[in-house]
Amino acid sequence: MANDTRHFAEELEQLKQRLLLMGGLAEERVSVAMRGLVDRDRDAISDAIDGDEPLNRMHLEIDDRCFKLLALYQPMAVDLRTIVSAVKINSDLERVGDLAVNIGEAAERYVMHPPVKPLIDLPRMGTLAQRMLRDALDAFVARNIPAARDVLAADDVLDALKDQIFRELLTYMLGDPHTIEPAIDLILVSRHLERIGDHATNIAEDVIFIVEARDVRHHAGERAQ
Amino acid sequence: MANDTRHFAEELEQLKQRLLLMGGLAEERVSVAMRGLVDRDRDAISDAIDGDEPLNRMHLEIDDRCFKLLALYQPMAVDLRTIVSAVKINSDLERVGDLAVNIGEAAERYVMHPPVKPLIDLPRMGTLAQRMLRDALDAFVARNIPAARDVLAADDVLDALKDQIFRELLTYMLGDPHTIEPAIDLILVSRHLERIGDHATNIAEDVIFIVEARDVRHHAGERAQ
Repeated sequence: MANDTRHFAEELEQLKQRLLLMGGLAEERVSVAMRGLVDRDRDAISDAIDGDEPLNRMHLEIDDRCFKLLALYQPMAVDLRTIVSAVKINSDLERVGDLAVNIGEAAERYVMHPPVKPLIDLPRMGTLAQRMLRDALDAFVARNIPAARDVLAADDVLDALKDQIFRELLTYMLGDPHTIEPAIDLILVSRHLERIGDHATNIAEDVIFIVEARDVRHHAGERAQ
Repeated sequence: MANDTRHFAEELEQLKQRLLLMGGLAEERVSVAMRGLVDRDRDAISDAIDGDEPLNRMHLEIDDRCFKLLALYQPMAVDLRTIVSAVKINSDLERVGDLAVNIGEAAERYVMHPPVKPLIDLPRMGTLAQRMLRDALDAFVARNIPAARDVLAADDVLDALKDQIFRELLTYMLGDPHTIEPAIDLILVSRHLERIGDHATNIAEDVIFIVEARDVRHHAGERAQ
């Protein structure tokens, strides 16, 4: 039984490491897509559109790991909540990969037109969304509630940037109809980045739930003995 | 033990019924928001923006149910996969509620302008997205793979409608700059409806995974005895 506990702790640690790795991969997909858009780099754009297969494979592998841990060790309380949250976080990260593909597709359309304007706030949104993702995953691994709360606060900054980008692009569109089509793609990119921030927020909320529900879950576990 | 099994089966059935109820509630939120937009009905719009509290409460209640089932009964194989999927489906439905709020917010801005055009394809998208959601949940409850595959196929129709709406609105925007701002809100609504379809698709994919992974999970379960 002590052996079982040790194995479980090792596998739970491995699961966290795989999630961190998947988070890094998801972040990198966003980074490639944004580089494609900002630098009008067609290779990066192609890579962004076609390159999320490793992320999809990892999604299946991590899902499988979670179910094996649940089935083999039947964990309770905070461990149970951590693993079920890992399943949800895994889905969040896979969808971040999908959003990076969406950004790549918008970039592919965008570079067919002359640039609407120099892109400044949009890459700022990209950097912030990526950092939120990284911070949320670090908070998950360390069960760090203050760090998770910082992610929730950063989401407001991301939303404000999105609104500012919208207002600015609207001015361009009203002034010159040629900018309408490409500007809409920039607006869509800002929405995709907002959603990446939402996924980071979901992860941060899971962290708070895992830690704060600990006692409740623990008592529920004791009653089941 | 037979008693335990009976209780477990009853509670699993209750969980499914609660998810169906939550699905109905999420569908109704979308319906109210779309009615607000199409009929320019300010009461419906306010209701869409402020009325997702019952859905949020239900999300917490269902999450709690799932964790109690996992902790008290330590289910294996297909039951384990069903309950973890229920946690994910519960999140999907809660996000459908958020998207209904987003549609309400876009409608609130939209009705401040004269109508861009009679809305025909957008309510069609709304009806289809709602039906996909309902069909996906029915497929989950009945573990019906063909029904789940139908939901995946319907998602292509939804995407085609979204593209058609975009092209049509672009023509309006190019012809009259006054339509730019309200047309963008209609484009955003079409994206929100597309995402509701994506959540229905997630649920349908879970159904296929639950049923098709049954044997695999069952063997993993046996090794754990």
